[in-house]
Amino acid sequence: MSRFFSVISVEDAVRTAERIAPPSQPEKIPIDTSAGRVLAADVHSDTDIPGFDRSVVDGYAVRSADTTGAGDSIPALLRCVGRVAMGKSDPLLVIGNAECAYIPTGGVLPQGADAAVMVEYTETAGDTVLVKKAASHGENIIRKDEDFRYGETVFTAGHRLTPQDTGVLSACGCVDVTVAKKPVVGIISTGNELVPADVVPGPGQVRDANAPMLAAWLLEYGCLPRRYGIAKDEREAFEAVIARAVAECDVVLLSGGSSKDDRDMTASVIASKGEVLVHGIALAPGKPTIIGTIGSTPVFGLPGHPASAFVVLIAIVRPLLDRMLGQSEPLIRTVRATLSENIPSQRGREEYVRVKVRDGIATPFFGKSGLLNTLVRSHGLIRIPAGFEGLEKGSTVDVILW
Amino acid sequence: MSRFFSVISVEDAVRTAERIAPPSQPEKIPIDTSAGRVLAADVHSDTDIPGFDRSVVDGYAVRSADTTGAGDSIPALLRCVGRVAMGKSDPLLVIGNAECAYIPTGGVLPQGADAAVMVEYTETAGDTVLVKKAASHGENIIRKDEDFRYGETVFTAGHRLTPQDTGVLSACGCVDVTVAKKPVVGIISTGNELVPADVVPGPGQVRDANAPMLAAWLLEYGCLPRRYGIAKDEREAFEAVIARAVAECDVVLLSGGSSKDDRDMTASVIASKGEVLVHGIALAPGKPTIIGTIGSTPVFGLPGHPASAFVVLIAIVRPLLDRMLGQSEPLIRTVRATLSENIPSQRGREEYVRVKVRDGIATPFFGKSGLLNTLVRSHGLIRIPAGFEGLEKGSTVDVILW
Repeated sequence: MSRFFSVISVEDAVRTAERIAPPSQPEKIPIDTSAGRVLAADVHSDTDIPGFDRSVVDGYAVRSADTTGAGDSIPALLRCVGRVAMGKSDPLLVIGNAECAYIPTGGVLPQGADAAVMVEYTETAGDTVLVKKAASHGENIIRKDEDFRYGETVFTAGHRLTPQDTGVLSACGCVDVTVAKKPVVGIISTGNELVPADVVPGPGQVRDANAPMLAAWLLEYGCLPRRYGIAKDEREAFEAVIARAVAECDVVLLSGGSSKDDRDMTASVIASKGEVLVHGIALAPGKPTIIGTIGSTPVFGLPGHPASAFVVLIAIVRPLLDRMLGQSEPLIRTVRATLSENIPSQRGREEYVRVKVRDGIATPFFGKSGLLNTLVRSHGLIRIPAGFEGLEKGSTVDVILW
Repeated sequence: MSRFFSVISVEDAVRTAERIAPPSQPEKIPIDTSAGRVLAADVHSDTDIPGFDRSVVDGYAVRSADTTGAGDSIPALLRCVGRVAMGKSDPLLVIGNAECAYIPTGGVLPQGADAAVMVEYTETAGDTVLVKKAASHGENIIRKDEDFRYGETVFTAGHRLTPQDTGVLSACGCVDVTVAKKPVVGIISTGNELVPADVVPGPGQVRDANAPMLAAWLLEYGCLPRRYGIAKDEREAFEAVIARAVAECDVVLLSGGSSKDDRDMTASVIASKGEVLVHGIALAPGKPTIIGTIGSTPVFGLPGHPASAFVVLIAIVRPLLDRMLGQSEPLIRTVRATLSENIPSQRGREEYVRVKVRDGIATPFFGKSGLLNTLVRSHGLIRIPAGFEGLEKGSTVDVILW
């Protein structure tokens, strides 16, 4: 292994990651658990919504022509000929000239009527209703199929469902919905210095922070993380755990080994069992990243520092996951903010700078990237594309939130 | 029941909701499933992080004084006296004058050394290492306890954990973490016009969209939704299902009945079994909202239109949930945008206006609020406080995303 690896651009690395992404697999799930999942097929309405002309107010169904010119001082006098019951259509209830019927919000507009008047603009005297406001044709009515038409495409494949979408799916008659299967992502921690959270670190040891961070992030992104513990640098044991992960997962992430020796072993094992496609990306932090395949399974070697691993996760691994999820738009939480000072950057590499955000102002955070506390004390990242020499104070930036 | 109910301000409604919120209950859970949960106790580090002075580069551990003035043309010549192994501390490895040792990223800085030099700035000739760059005291080193000190407060109670936080918790020795129990929220749909998603609506019927929407939103917000189906307007059956929900849940939401008769029955049942505290809020949409208690259980009557129910959910119910979760900051996804045109508003009531957002521009969406498709075709809401007569074109607004 050379000690200076050759780096490629972020764009090329992403293209490589997308190219090796296993195809999206569909599965049917109940809509109750569908929020956050990505649709694998278009969804059409199985019915007109609503299925009838519907009042949006409590009041009276009227013929609008009968209310022309009506006002506080000259009310229209209409005869109340009935009452619309919720959830029922009454074909015998017909509104003729100078007639009306009580209608609740959501009630079926009776035949003959073409508008509804809010109860607040009416008064009753026996069977007579005084209407004190003119209604225009169609006023306070939702027309049959105005919301969605029978057969209309309501959502397209690739859309990530929100909680509100679940309500719309329900209205369209969906009980189950076809979504992309959750990619199973294996996580193997590497590094002789690592111990798990429940062990008190001895001299020279640190607890593994990356694996739990990656697992939690993947879970939130709609994947199924599967952890394989910490592999030490005995090559045979390392090869065995990689082989197991490759057999059981759709993607494998190797994480945590921060030293050159670890990275070299990772690259060498991938090369011996499969192919190393990328070793080094023009990305800061995140340069010492490995992308390869073993069989048809993508295998990533992530940098050891947690802040660096996170950048590679969102900049390089995420596009592969989006491809596997069939997702049309990446799920990234950003806020727009104004930069508080100049940030210099090296042209030719994409750079991610940590920032704090308060009241719409993004302030660069100058902690060492090897520290965990930067994940806690900063709020997110600003991306500086490779073609830029920096960002100027006062410019508007999109902060990718942790 | 009066037909014109007396409305109170959003502020007073929120204060009422917060006052009746049941107290937060703590529980211990494994950190693997803790992302998105709210801490019920402060978290302290059980160790110094790191527990030793640590190199952040692959290179050589040196005494910085030995490299003063070193450069490409006048390298410092140091004798390599050893190699730091990952995950181990070697008390016998001591760096004396004009000496150095190979150190991997993450390795323990040997005694005597006070800096590390990147391998890229060195050359070797037998046991001699040529250092071509001066190192300052502490350069490329993370000091013992620089990240977190033993006993330091890393997170405070009320913080909602992110995926990255899981990594930090792990480093602090947390295997389990104390969080607020998920509030159990019952959902009862009311309205004779409603049928569930798997039934084709007959004349005058519509499918229940609110209950699945509310359930999905609550799930995402960190609650346990429990659905009680659709209650028709037979009073006894309605009372029975409310009694069951009140006994089994921390909070009960009554949803879906859009007509005045439904709202009146809801208020009357709450009043007969407990107390109606609020009936009508100066909020648009969302005016016909009911807040009450049965025993010590908060019971909300939400408006029937899905877009209105959603506004009440985030404006009125959410503060109660935040209180129950002990959450210090609300979890709301907003984007900042510039308003494309004037929006008039009625002073004296808080108003939520649906908007589309593209390229940082928020454009008001003028669909009828009774339509489901507004949930799909708009991106979120702008809040106009009660004291405003509207918002001006060009002003900066925070859009609450659906």
